[in-house]
Amino acid sequence: MSRTPPATRADYCAFYPIATRWKDMDAYGHLNNASYLSYLDTAVTLWQLAAGMEIDQPGGLRFLAVQNGCTYHAEARFPDVLHAGVRCGHLGRSSARFEVGFFRNDEDRACAEGFIVHVLVDAQARPEPIPERFRPVIEAILRGG
Amino acid sequence: MSRTPPATRADYCAFYPIATRWKDMDAYGHLNNASYLSYLDTAVTLWQLAAGMEIDQPGGLRFLAVQNGCTYHAEARFPDVLHAGVRCGHLGRSSARFEVGFFRNDEDRACAEGFIVHVLVDAQARPEPIPERFRPVIEAILRGG
Amino acid sequence: MSRTPPATRADYCAFYPIATRWKDMDAYGHLNNASYLSYLDTAVTLWQLAAGMEIDQPGGLRFLAVQNGCTYHAEARFPDVLHAGVRCGHLGRSSARFEVGFFRNDEDRACAEGFIVHVLVDAQARPEPIPERFRPVIEAILRGG
Amino acid sequence: MSRTPPATRADYCAFYPIATRWKDMDAYGHLNNASYLSYLDTAVTLWQLAAGMEIDQPGGLRFLAVQNGCTYHAEARFPDVLHAGVRCGHLGRSSARFEVGFFRNDEDRACAEGFIVHVLVDAQARPEPIPERFRPVIEAILRGG
Repeated sequence: MSRTPPATRADYCAFYPIATRWKDMDAYGHLNNASYLSYLDTAVTLWQLAAGMEIDQPGGLRFLAVQNGCTYHAEARFPDVLHAGVRCGHLGRSSARFEVGFFRNDEDRACAEGFIVHVLVDAQARPEPIPERFRPVIEAILRGG
Repeated sequence: MSRTPPATRADYCAFYPIATRWKDMDAYGHLNNASYLSYLDTAVTLWQLAAGMEIDQPGGLRFLAVQNGCTYHAEARFPDVLHAGVRCGHLGRSSARFEVGFFRNDEDRACAEGFIVHVLVDAQARPEPIPERFRPVIEAILRGG
Repeated sequence: MSRTPPATRADYCAFYPIATRWKDMDAYGHLNNASYLSYLDTAVTLWQLAAGMEIDQPGGLRFLAVQNGCTYHAEARFPDVLHAGVRCGHLGRSSARFEVGFFRNDEDRACAEGFIVHVLVDAQARPEPIPERFRPVIEAILRGG
Repeated sequence: MSRTPPATRADYCAFYPIATRWKDMDAYGHLNNASYLSYLDTAVTLWQLAAGMEIDQPGGLRFLAVQNGCTYHAEARFPDVLHAGVRCGHLGRSSARFEVGFFRNDEDRACAEGFIVHVLVDAQARPEPIPERFRPVIEAILRGG
């Protein structure tokens, strides 16, 4: 169990609203843990698309998730809106670790914080270098950068 | 990105088949990363129910997820059946880290390995000790135990 | 297969934006049919909450879905935003049929149209009359009303 | 609200077990209505694959859902296993209506009954005739056939 205190909005960069859905809750009446990983996937992809990365287009980039995870600080529920802040935790040659903080409604303390490690791959799922033109775009959201 | 080689079935204890669904795949034509976290949640809950823990019953135990994560070794897709092996990675006073290896069809190398940290809480979401009667049950699936 | 031409926004009343998620797409690279039923459930619940119905509160109203369905006119995909327009198709003593049209981004022709029949039930899942104070609220969005 | 009494297993043909998942439940502590539509999609696809239809293969068949729906007779919950029985309600030139009855655990009365209308389409989403070799396979599960 993480003892790290929740981050604030100032710790994250680009924000995307995630409107929760009734079905995101489980029988405990709160957002199920797996729901957050789908929000995270969505927020990172929205950032990548906004940054000009042609995800899921013919001949476009294809990022494989090789690891993900999330730490939960507080419960949330439908109809809360979560504001997902995206930053990059680490940029490698073929991979990048994207980190996302989730902020409930107008709260400034994260209710959850997660990450996903993406590896850029070719059609045969072999890693390939992240194109030079995208490196400064990613560096602009590097944590503490 | 994890460099740990995938575990084998011998590294895990209780197994539950997870039949994948068409909708578990995303536009990449493989099981979406968030789908695995839902499988994991389900496998651990099935183990807890089989172990006699009264989850989600009036007056029953309530486990909160405080952290989860997953490492992906290889892609899988519908209609694969994933065999989810459950073990305990750590048993604390109020919390337990459950680890799950996913094995595709008859493969012996995990295609994914994840974990969830559960904290037992009362109705006000305050941690409470895991009942003594459940400790030996959990210890029986302790990693390396 | 429905031969009815798609409705326009003028045919529906209260609108809620539904931001699609990466995972809502299936291996065909479009929004999976089951995703729409979750959008529909969410839009109707948002309307009910905005109308003052205390869903999922202690002692609050509990609506059971007894039937639902959807007709698909055109494909949509992430990151489309669907605008869900809600209306009431029929108001009974204990039940109401809510109808939802989905409009992609700024389009005026529905890409999908669905419905859900809700029955108000008590704790034992027995139908009970819709409270008088909610009838005019529902009647205000009656189709052709 | 449907007044049709629930069907029995004898009314359906090919059966597939659907193991429910913790996350399939919503805040009402029962399987969410949208979950059933995903089960239905999965059961029909499993039947199609078993019948030799090359779904989602390069150059394979592509079925578009143009309509779906479900009637709910009784609530179910995790960890219930639903047994999904598939039959064909109507076979057209390019389309087929597949109907699915859901039977909880060892019950013989359906807890839910749904359908999906599939249209076979080419790469440009234009209807094309169902191949002759598949017609007798589908006719073998025609309702009342």
